[in-house]
Amino acid sequence: MTNKVCVIGAGSTRYGRLDESIIEIALDASKDAINSAGITPDDIQAGYISNVFGVSDKQVHMAPVIMSNLGIPYVPGLTIESACGSGSIMFREAYANVAAGFYDCVLALGVEKITHTGTIQSTTLFSYCSDFFYEGGSGASFPGLFASIARSYMATHKASEEDLAHVAVKNHENGMLNPKAHVRKEITIDDVLKSPVVASPLKIYDCCPFSDGASAVILCNEAFAKKSSRQYVEVIGSGRGASPAAVQGRNDITTIPSTVNAANQAYKMAGITPKDIDFAEVHDCFTIAEIIDIEDLGFFQKGTAAHAVREGATRRNGEIPINPSGGLKSKGHPIGATGVGQVAEVFEQFTGKAGERTIKNAEIALTHNFGATGASAAVHVFKKVE
Amino acid sequence: MTNKVCVIGAGSTRYGRLDESIIEIALDASKDAINSAGITPDDIQAGYISNVFGVSDKQVHMAPVIMSNLGIPYVPGLTIESACGSGSIMFREAYANVAAGFYDCVLALGVEKITHTGTIQSTTLFSYCSDFFYEGGSGASFPGLFASIARSYMATHKASEEDLAHVAVKNHENGMLNPKAHVRKEITIDDVLKSPVVASPLKIYDCCPFSDGASAVILCNEAFAKKSSRQYVEVIGSGRGASPAAVQGRNDITTIPSTVNAANQAYKMAGITPKDIDFAEVHDCFTIAEIIDIEDLGFFQKGTAAHAVREGATRRNGEIPINPSGGLKSKGHPIGATGVGQVAEVFEQFTGKAGERTIKNAEIALTHNFGATGASAAVHVFKKVE
Repeated sequence: MTNKVCVIGAGSTRYGRLDESIIEIALDASKDAINSAGITPDDIQAGYISNVFGVSDKQVHMAPVIMSNLGIPYVPGLTIESACGSGSIMFREAYANVAAGFYDCVLALGVEKITHTGTIQSTTLFSYCSDFFYEGGSGASFPGLFASIARSYMATHKASEEDLAHVAVKNHENGMLNPKAHVRKEITIDDVLKSPVVASPLKIYDCCPFSDGASAVILCNEAFAKKSSRQYVEVIGSGRGASPAAVQGRNDITTIPSTVNAANQAYKMAGITPKDIDFAEVHDCFTIAEIIDIEDLGFFQKGTAAHAVREGATRRNGEIPINPSGGLKSKGHPIGATGVGQVAEVFEQFTGKAGERTIKNAEIALTHNFGATGASAAVHVFKKVE
Repeated sequence: MTNKVCVIGAGSTRYGRLDESIIEIALDASKDAINSAGITPDDIQAGYISNVFGVSDKQVHMAPVIMSNLGIPYVPGLTIESACGSGSIMFREAYANVAAGFYDCVLALGVEKITHTGTIQSTTLFSYCSDFFYEGGSGASFPGLFASIARSYMATHKASEEDLAHVAVKNHENGMLNPKAHVRKEITIDDVLKSPVVASPLKIYDCCPFSDGASAVILCNEAFAKKSSRQYVEVIGSGRGASPAAVQGRNDITTIPSTVNAANQAYKMAGITPKDIDFAEVHDCFTIAEIIDIEDLGFFQKGTAAHAVREGATRRNGEIPINPSGGLKSKGHPIGATGVGQVAEVFEQFTGKAGERTIKNAEIALTHNFGATGASAAVHVFKKVE
């Protein structure tokens, strides 16, 4: 028997190219989350941090630095890494510790600072998140790997480059309403199709940007949440999964096993089915990823998502709004922060802070975030608490 | 109410300058641990990995690669980092997940590959584990920081450079009996005192080496351990703590608050006092660290440890043997692996695998491992199970 776990506060920096240090942006998001929760730093009993390339801004072992700067130097912390899925995998650990009763209230902070290294060095560093012996080290960077996945999907399910473009157009449309999004620019199908090719069939507008950014949430047990006078959100499902590390090790590359497994665990724990989800934040590092995600999460039958996206099913007023925040594609992808930022979006949606991008009458939401080509993934389900 | 947690297997590579890749050494240690436990990879439900600078061997997001190579690609994992304390902080998370009942059996693996980057780059990378804004970025690398700590201790407690040298001589003596130790070389007090100065009063023999290496242990609940026909060890105490990140933020630099807090938690949980500990593996990154550790852990009154070490109290036949493995000083310090290697030593000691370095009649042992200058730390207490 575990404790109910709640999110009582959330904060984020703007995502994009940021000039501040990795510690400065981490502190900005943490303080935002603490203020949003109406608590003081002294209420925090542990810090869970997600980050991948702190080394590129000359700071690893970040927890003591963050805690010391928050004025709580004797509160223990640690950093969790699982590539681009670090934020959700870390959130899962923070969740598990509160659920198990080890802590009443913790800070879960994701942060990344990468843009200052430049595009070539960023791409190189990111390739270390692949199975480097088989993939990165053989020249297969992530755009190339996802291009292979896209080719396989398009051939198997008769999808087109234009179908993929619809994902980008929809997410940019949503990102226009998110003041903290990295790429706030309305685009057309034609813009996507005519944009420079990165790794065919993926063009620049099929790819998420390299972003800096930090997001933080405050997690606590139900008793702690009820003492607070603020509105909060309950975590009702949590799951994580794994896939063969290298894409070449998988039988079918149009599905990601880690997503399927994590989602099944989360649905089972929450006692719901995909039909009960009112909106979802999913891992759209490339447009093809979002198509595959929303099939693997059970929102659409395998092979039908590209058509559904084209018909508008995933827009804010569609049957299952996907990435109202703008997703990785428009909101941005500071890899250590992304999974936490998704939870922050759910918190804002459910507590009246999402402004114009609010999904009306939503009560249950899902977050999905993976590492590399889905070698690791975590899925969480949240319920609005009135 | 949590489950009892047991260690049922352990494995390690040799520590030192290794030619294999980070993944190869991680797999070697993991397979050793699996064999030692008498289980198969299929028994493992999750992988907990500790590592700091995977980026320097071009592989982060290591869990999927390790799990895939072990033939269990659908088993989830993650990496935990807390500088030189990564191994014990990760062990604590693995412990907590088994204690809470989330998993029956997990792999806890620590690994580091750093020597190929050279001494200057290694020192630079390690400095990112300090509070870089105040310390590393201002030129204070770890030998310098521990030299300040040593000066303060020597002035406050009338200790001498010769006292510190006794720690090195004792740990090298122990390491001679450890076939996997990095620096297997008997040294004298004179050797230490006449060795080149690194940061006065610390000389080269006061400093642990940069090491590559991997260590792994198998953790499980009591029911799982009892089903195995092998001898196992029970985790009876677990604690972790934090200190102000930068040394300059501490009132007294002759004590490390994270150690004191972590130890108090672990003793309380185990229902014991420091007098009940039969031997300990402690974090002797520099000789002065061991002196301070064994006071902070309660084995000696503050200010008396240097004298006790000189009198032989911490030798294998002394009142409280410290670092029978050789410690970081002689066994070596592959930073992500060190904390796990300490647990592996306890397992070997308690299951008749420590050969000549076995501490006779020992039944309760302690491991202590910290990050940076003790900004983070974890302490665990183990009991031999007959």
